[in-house]
Amino acid sequence: MAIKILVTGGTFDKEYNLLTGQLFFNGTHVPEMLRLGRSRLHVTIKTIMMIDSQSMTNADRKKIVQECEHSKEDKILITHGTDTMTETARLLGQTIRDKTIILTGAMVPYAFGSSDGLFNFGSALAFLQTLPPGVYISMNGKYFHWDNVRKNKDVGLFEETQ
Amino acid sequence: MAIKILVTGGTFDKEYNLLTGQLFFNGTHVPEMLRLGRSRLHVTIKTIMMIDSQSMTNADRKKIVQECEHSKEDKILITHGTDTMTETARLLGQTIRDKTIILTGAMVPYAFGSSDGLFNFGSALAFLQTLPPGVYISMNGKYFHWDNVRKNKDVGLFEETQ
Amino acid sequence: MAIKILVTGGTFDKEYNLLTGQLFFNGTHVPEMLRLGRSRLHVTIKTIMMIDSQSMTNADRKKIVQECEHSKEDKILITHGTDTMTETARLLGQTIRDKTIILTGAMVPYAFGSSDGLFNFGSALAFLQTLPPGVYISMNGKYFHWDNVRKNKDVGLFEETQ
Amino acid sequence: MAIKILVTGGTFDKEYNLLTGQLFFNGTHVPEMLRLGRSRLHVTIKTIMMIDSQSMTNADRKKIVQECEHSKEDKILITHGTDTMTETARLLGQTIRDKTIILTGAMVPYAFGSSDGLFNFGSALAFLQTLPPGVYISMNGKYFHWDNVRKNKDVGLFEETQ
Repeated sequence: MAIKILVTGGTFDKEYNLLTGQLFFNGTHVPEMLRLGRSRLHVTIKTIMMIDSQSMTNADRKKIVQECEHSKEDKILITHGTDTMTETARLLGQTIRDKTIILTGAMVPYAFGSSDGLFNFGSALAFLQTLPPGVYISMNGKYFHWDNVRKNKDVGLFEETQ
Repeated sequence: MAIKILVTGGTFDKEYNLLTGQLFFNGTHVPEMLRLGRSRLHVTIKTIMMIDSQSMTNADRKKIVQECEHSKEDKILITHGTDTMTETARLLGQTIRDKTIILTGAMVPYAFGSSDGLFNFGSALAFLQTLPPGVYISMNGKYFHWDNVRKNKDVGLFEETQ
Repeated sequence: MAIKILVTGGTFDKEYNLLTGQLFFNGTHVPEMLRLGRSRLHVTIKTIMMIDSQSMTNADRKKIVQECEHSKEDKILITHGTDTMTETARLLGQTIRDKTIILTGAMVPYAFGSSDGLFNFGSALAFLQTLPPGVYISMNGKYFHWDNVRKNKDVGLFEETQ
Repeated sequence: MAIKILVTGGTFDKEYNLLTGQLFFNGTHVPEMLRLGRSRLHVTIKTIMMIDSQSMTNADRKKIVQECEHSKEDKILITHGTDTMTETARLLGQTIRDKTIILTGAMVPYAFGSSDGLFNFGSALAFLQTLPPGVYISMNGKYFHWDNVRKNKDVGLFEETQ
């Protein structure tokens, strides 16, 4: 079972720049997470952008959709900032129906000891192998359909809209 | 969706005893892992034993089977040592057919920085929500049917037998 | 030997706010670090402010000096942001001569796995016990006299000025 | 100021062998700890053995003494298992008087998240730079003279004998 992982940035991959004191993007932690998890899955990793999801434009989202459309793998995991994850999921859900696409991310950067990243990453890879074609968000140990999910920004959790 | 987590010990929950220099069992890390993963799943945790799977007896395995039979939840995650995980899975698979049961564990204790535990735990909880009734092992990012899995002890990885 | 630890904030104690995605101050990690280091020193901890050293005012610095003057302990460790650590050290050095005062901090927050905080903290506590009265900065495994130190902001290291 | 670091093993450098489930020695973590601590000290590292201090023989201890005698650096840090650290310190203290020698170690392996190793290492390097010639143990944030120290094995702490 071939899996494509598309990296777009988000809190997941934020690191601490000790010269500026700011969080920034360096490279993705996805290969390290696969190694730590002792994964034996056949994955291809492609970094298509490295940005905060708050600054993601329509053009960026179209690029993500195109990458999914052109991917020869029909199991696609997208690492994505949580702030606009539901927007990208919606655009994907309205466009692509023949692939299983899961968006996931983290509320705390992977580089922090207290990150939810590795847990989310493990969950998302498992959902990817078992859910039927469709577009989903995987966060908080759960999966959500693209058309029934919102981020509750007051508590930092994802929940169904109805 | 109600989930039962049965804790049996294994590398997962080994800690370092600084007075003896030995690894030992203290309590389970499952609640901490759920918290770190920011899980919103409805889970009930029950510690039924705290042992190395190498020292697990037939009586221990029967106890695990009985706990699964009597569980009112039909989604059951079992944390288990990896050495005899396939044996317990086999006994469960031969006995229980109407519940989804996943066994998982870790090759490196959760208390180590380099543990695969959180990744495996996230994967197993996701498989639990999506796989049909049956008994499975979740390790290395994959799931395996109870009757088609072995631990390759030379490399510390799980693989299909055929 | 009685030791006073004055907490003023700085990168040391920055945490990640998962709702805003910003680094912020919550509480100090000093007690946790003493516990982790299995310290048996007699210390009194006092948090006098919780700020970035870039936003530290002259009034703040005077408050730090006063706290040191009024401290009954003559061994004082100050945790401090690195950006203006040398300025506070200079004011202390020009004012107080009968106590051993060490300023230390971190380039990476303690909450990150890759922090230099615990190393610096261990070093600073040791210098505090052995250096004669005076005001010093302890960073990068070394100690520096208050009147012969600068932060090289290009590389994030402390060095002697001459 | 030139510093020699002699590595002898001990809990400090124990790692987890995921194939056997045992703790073992692989390589030393000293270079990684210096990097993490952003150390700018001039150090030379030499691994002279990689053993538990419980299995350290008189011949091993003589080898350590000889390494110290022949070291051209007069500041020497020895990483050492805690169980017989005081014995090696005594032999060194009875033999060498013109160098500052500090023995340190850890109660919890550095590879564990909860290790005291980095704190002890930072402390020991600082004591090394400031204490007069003599042989000392640095543990629990303190330093002890070789002829006035014991390990309290009931609580895992070092203390003065009188």
